[in-house]
Amino acid sequence: MSQTIKPQDLSVTTGPLDSGHKVYERGTQFPELRVPFREIPLHPDSGEEPVRVYDTSGPYSDSSAVIDISRGLERHRDAWVRARGDVEEYQGRDIKPVDNGVQMAEVGQIHAFPAVPPRPLRAKGGVAVTQMAYARRGIITPEMEYVAIRENLKRSEIRDAVSKGESFGASIPEQITAEFVREEIARGRAIIPCNINHPELEPMIIGRNFLVKINTNIGNSAVTSSIAEEVEKMVWSIRCGGDTLMDLSTGKHIHNTREWIIRNCPVPVGTVPIYQALEKVGGIAEDLTWEIYRDTIIEQCEQGVDYFTVHAGVRLAYVPLTAQRVTGIVSRGGSIMAKWCLSHHRESFLYENFDELCAIMKAYDVSFSLGDGLRPGCIADANDAAQFAELETLGELTTRAWAQDVQVMIEGPGHVPMHLIKENMEKQLACCHEAPFYTLGPLTTDIAPGYDHITSGIGAAMIGWYGTAMLCYVTPKEHLGLPNRDDVKTGVITYKIAAHAADLAKGHPAARVRDDALSRARFSFRWEDQFNLSLDPSTARAFHDETLPAPGAKEAHFCSMCGPKFCSMKITEEIREYAKNGMKEMSETFKEQGGQLYVPVPQNRADD
Amino acid sequence: MSQTIKPQDLSVTTGPLDSGHKVYERGTQFPELRVPFREIPLHPDSGEEPVRVYDTSGPYSDSSAVIDISRGLERHRDAWVRARGDVEEYQGRDIKPVDNGVQMAEVGQIHAFPAVPPRPLRAKGGVAVTQMAYARRGIITPEMEYVAIRENLKRSEIRDAVSKGESFGASIPEQITAEFVREEIARGRAIIPCNINHPELEPMIIGRNFLVKINTNIGNSAVTSSIAEEVEKMVWSIRCGGDTLMDLSTGKHIHNTREWIIRNCPVPVGTVPIYQALEKVGGIAEDLTWEIYRDTIIEQCEQGVDYFTVHAGVRLAYVPLTAQRVTGIVSRGGSIMAKWCLSHHRESFLYENFDELCAIMKAYDVSFSLGDGLRPGCIADANDAAQFAELETLGELTTRAWAQDVQVMIEGPGHVPMHLIKENMEKQLACCHEAPFYTLGPLTTDIAPGYDHITSGIGAAMIGWYGTAMLCYVTPKEHLGLPNRDDVKTGVITYKIAAHAADLAKGHPAARVRDDALSRARFSFRWEDQFNLSLDPSTARAFHDETLPAPGAKEAHFCSMCGPKFCSMKITEEIREYAKNGMKEMSETFKEQGGQLYVPVPQNRADD
Repeated sequence: MSQTIKPQDLSVTTGPLDSGHKVYERGTQFPELRVPFREIPLHPDSGEEPVRVYDTSGPYSDSSAVIDISRGLERHRDAWVRARGDVEEYQGRDIKPVDNGVQMAEVGQIHAFPAVPPRPLRAKGGVAVTQMAYARRGIITPEMEYVAIRENLKRSEIRDAVSKGESFGASIPEQITAEFVREEIARGRAIIPCNINHPELEPMIIGRNFLVKINTNIGNSAVTSSIAEEVEKMVWSIRCGGDTLMDLSTGKHIHNTREWIIRNCPVPVGTVPIYQALEKVGGIAEDLTWEIYRDTIIEQCEQGVDYFTVHAGVRLAYVPLTAQRVTGIVSRGGSIMAKWCLSHHRESFLYENFDELCAIMKAYDVSFSLGDGLRPGCIADANDAAQFAELETLGELTTRAWAQDVQVMIEGPGHVPMHLIKENMEKQLACCHEAPFYTLGPLTTDIAPGYDHITSGIGAAMIGWYGTAMLCYVTPKEHLGLPNRDDVKTGVITYKIAAHAADLAKGHPAARVRDDALSRARFSFRWEDQFNLSLDPSTARAFHDETLPAPGAKEAHFCSMCGPKFCSMKITEEIREYAKNGMKEMSETFKEQGGQLYVPVPQNRADD
Repeated sequence: MSQTIKPQDLSVTTGPLDSGHKVYERGTQFPELRVPFREIPLHPDSGEEPVRVYDTSGPYSDSSAVIDISRGLERHRDAWVRARGDVEEYQGRDIKPVDNGVQMAEVGQIHAFPAVPPRPLRAKGGVAVTQMAYARRGIITPEMEYVAIRENLKRSEIRDAVSKGESFGASIPEQITAEFVREEIARGRAIIPCNINHPELEPMIIGRNFLVKINTNIGNSAVTSSIAEEVEKMVWSIRCGGDTLMDLSTGKHIHNTREWIIRNCPVPVGTVPIYQALEKVGGIAEDLTWEIYRDTIIEQCEQGVDYFTVHAGVRLAYVPLTAQRVTGIVSRGGSIMAKWCLSHHRESFLYENFDELCAIMKAYDVSFSLGDGLRPGCIADANDAAQFAELETLGELTTRAWAQDVQVMIEGPGHVPMHLIKENMEKQLACCHEAPFYTLGPLTTDIAPGYDHITSGIGAAMIGWYGTAMLCYVTPKEHLGLPNRDDVKTGVITYKIAAHAADLAKGHPAARVRDDALSRARFSFRWEDQFNLSLDPSTARAFHDETLPAPGAKEAHFCSMCGPKFCSMKITEEIREYAKNGMKEMSETFKEQGGQLYVPVPQNRADD
């Protein structure tokens, strides 16, 4: 173990989540699969089945798992990858001091991950070992069956009527099969980010016809943070519900920090490789070269990064389009590339070497997250010429990546007022051939720093409804400072709300089950069930107890809002009882007197 | 002063708001008007004018005002009302012990407001003294000019291009004139809730062609709260930005609590009179009568309540439509009326006596907020037959109220998934003849108790964009407990975000100024300007200081997110400089070599 990591630094949060317990479902085609869920049991009096929900928390919430972050998680996917017979171990690139932003080898060992990783895998003979390559050849992989089971959430057994929703042309099936997953990946409409060197991964899928996902960001900046904190933030964010994680670290120890995170991370890890490349040239954008970038890419491919944000759409010709903007270029990667292009007065080296980049990434199955380096940084700059010029180039790059079977998603803005959000989605679908969209918010106003999880949660819910496949979370600290643990949780929960609201509005078959179960619990004053079914049981419970702390209050058939005498739900219960017993009789009496008293009950409008 | 109120109970928050200072603008037709605004000065280096924002905080944020809540605010509107010559003082109804839910006269004096109010005013000879009556006769009142000035926010002087937005058929003028206000009120498309007995009021307008407003709720329930707390909550909520206030008190001392609030409240106060009526019959819904309700209405008209939520659309025939619902009837007023109808097997006394109710309200200019007693309490019940049957009746009642010149707004849901929100707005416009819509959220999912300000903020922003004129706030404690001061603030700020995002998307001419000013400040690293322009300066400042507490950090041209070396905004500044100086030359060189290097800069898309 490294000298500088003390034992107490290595503890992370483990144990069951706030409610329910972990269950696993086996695969059919691949019986070795164990797909995780959380099941929330309800009060026996309810007569209801447990509610099964999606679980992103990995082994950290499994009481039977032994967690030692200095060893990393179990490498369960390794066997699936090797079984395909198209990869080989090789002597990977040496880790150099500069990878950690330092000069001497011994200093590079600071914060080093203790366990020496096995030699990396890569494709034999330059073939593509991507999920897209298999899908196009008609092959169903274990990853595909895994995500099919994971997405279903028992939807075939759902008794209740479900709303059809409005999905704006998405094709959400009643039942997700592995074959459906394969088809969607083959046509580029969904991706499973899963580097063959990230065997700790529990596969997940990102696409318009699947549940809306959320990404969280962590990363020590030059100003603050330690490695142990970063690992705990990762654990914390997946326990709250983050589906993927971007490591945006800059500064020193960047390689070692990432190693700790990937080896312990059950969700896909994304990076922005230009950040590390820039560190390697001392922060001078002009000094970047394709060779340094390429070397960084290989370093991260071997390490197990699942997707790369690449700002290859920031072309020289587009840079002047940003000069009149209120906030210019706000993307870090975008501004680095813009500066490089201007300094050399040359086309972007990322754009020019894009095909070679694809050739590297396909040998590890690293997915593209094509970066929106020219996204608007304020309401005034939304949907402008710079943004849409880049988007068209991202569409061209999508086609080039797909030509090499590399999986692609497209990043989107940013800051957009509500009436301009839909145009973003429609233009992305049209330009990028239905490759999954992955947006940051968008923020719907600029005037609320400190509350940008909310300004952006509004836009995120809407664009998720319109078709965005993954939402990049925003914390309350956006624009102001670095998020702490509480901020991460607030950001994740806000984005879980946005994603779920989008699933509901799209008419996702598995979405409304949880709302209905919670609402029935609420109506029946099953307080514990209501807390347990909520996105954040401990907060819900704490808020309730602030007003009515007595244990008996959680059995009470009233709540603090109205008090015992005034409860509308209690009155409704009486109405229901009355309606059952007395209404018909009353109605008959009335009809004898010549009246038609009650309006006939039609089918519920929402379900038509 | 009452024995039970100790001096320390009477202090409320006063002094300037977190940023800027109070200014007043005089009227033209009525030079005695002093319309309040807050002006936020910017750093001299910016060369920018101060930003003028809407101010709901009344005298409480005016350093020169003397506040003594045991005396109440200045009765500045009294002269405007009397000048019209159509009102008379009279001997009001005696305050009875039962008005405070007590048996004996002396107990009714507990918590009594110390200053004896002047005798109440009412219309002479049964005429209508409503803003609608004047508007229809072509009269511009001081209230109308006041709100015209208030809404404009200097919009005629705004230099910047403004976005046109998408307003879904609203007719938002470039400039709000008093005549435009009059027209909108005459046709029922906007209301100024302003009881002639609430002379402390600073008039405001609610309508689809004006800025979107927000309502906050306070009220001691049977379970907790004191009068002093309620007054402070009122002050707190208007300081945060609440446009109107509903007093939802139940239990004892209901009359006295309301007196303290109204006498100190510069924004319109709404109530649900059935709550007090129910207290008067010991909480037994069946014992309610029209006579008791009528007496309560007169009590509150004389006291100065500006608008009444009246659940007159809960008709006997609709009650069975709710029996199959997941959460039945969740409106308190709705469930009380439903129970009354069923118990007596009679049509609602509110519906049957609606015209008499109008005749009373027109004599004081109390506005209707026609209650949605059958609103959905969960996603599953959204847009169902019960809800829409009631909405149609509300449309009929609107016509009846307008026949007597009574101002009307319509309450809306509730819990609605995103894809069903627009139908609510469209149906409300169609059924209710464009009377202003006033919605609670709607909540877009049921699964996040503890975060329902956010689940509902999403729906509120959307329905505000579609045309809702006022949004009733929801706090994080919704469904769980009673909001404290922090919860009220969180709820108000969330709803200010929703309302402002809606104004932006509608293309409101005065909306984007603040976003643009803040974004320019952000881009120029004018941190103090950024904080001062934000909805919650103290929170923004605190979040910044958490990461970078040194005073110098607020002068620094970088921030904590990226650190000094990595700042995208700094790089953009360089690009801009470069673009200004070097681009043309570079472009010429390139053209000589035969290339067309840069894409021509078109007009900003958002402004087309």
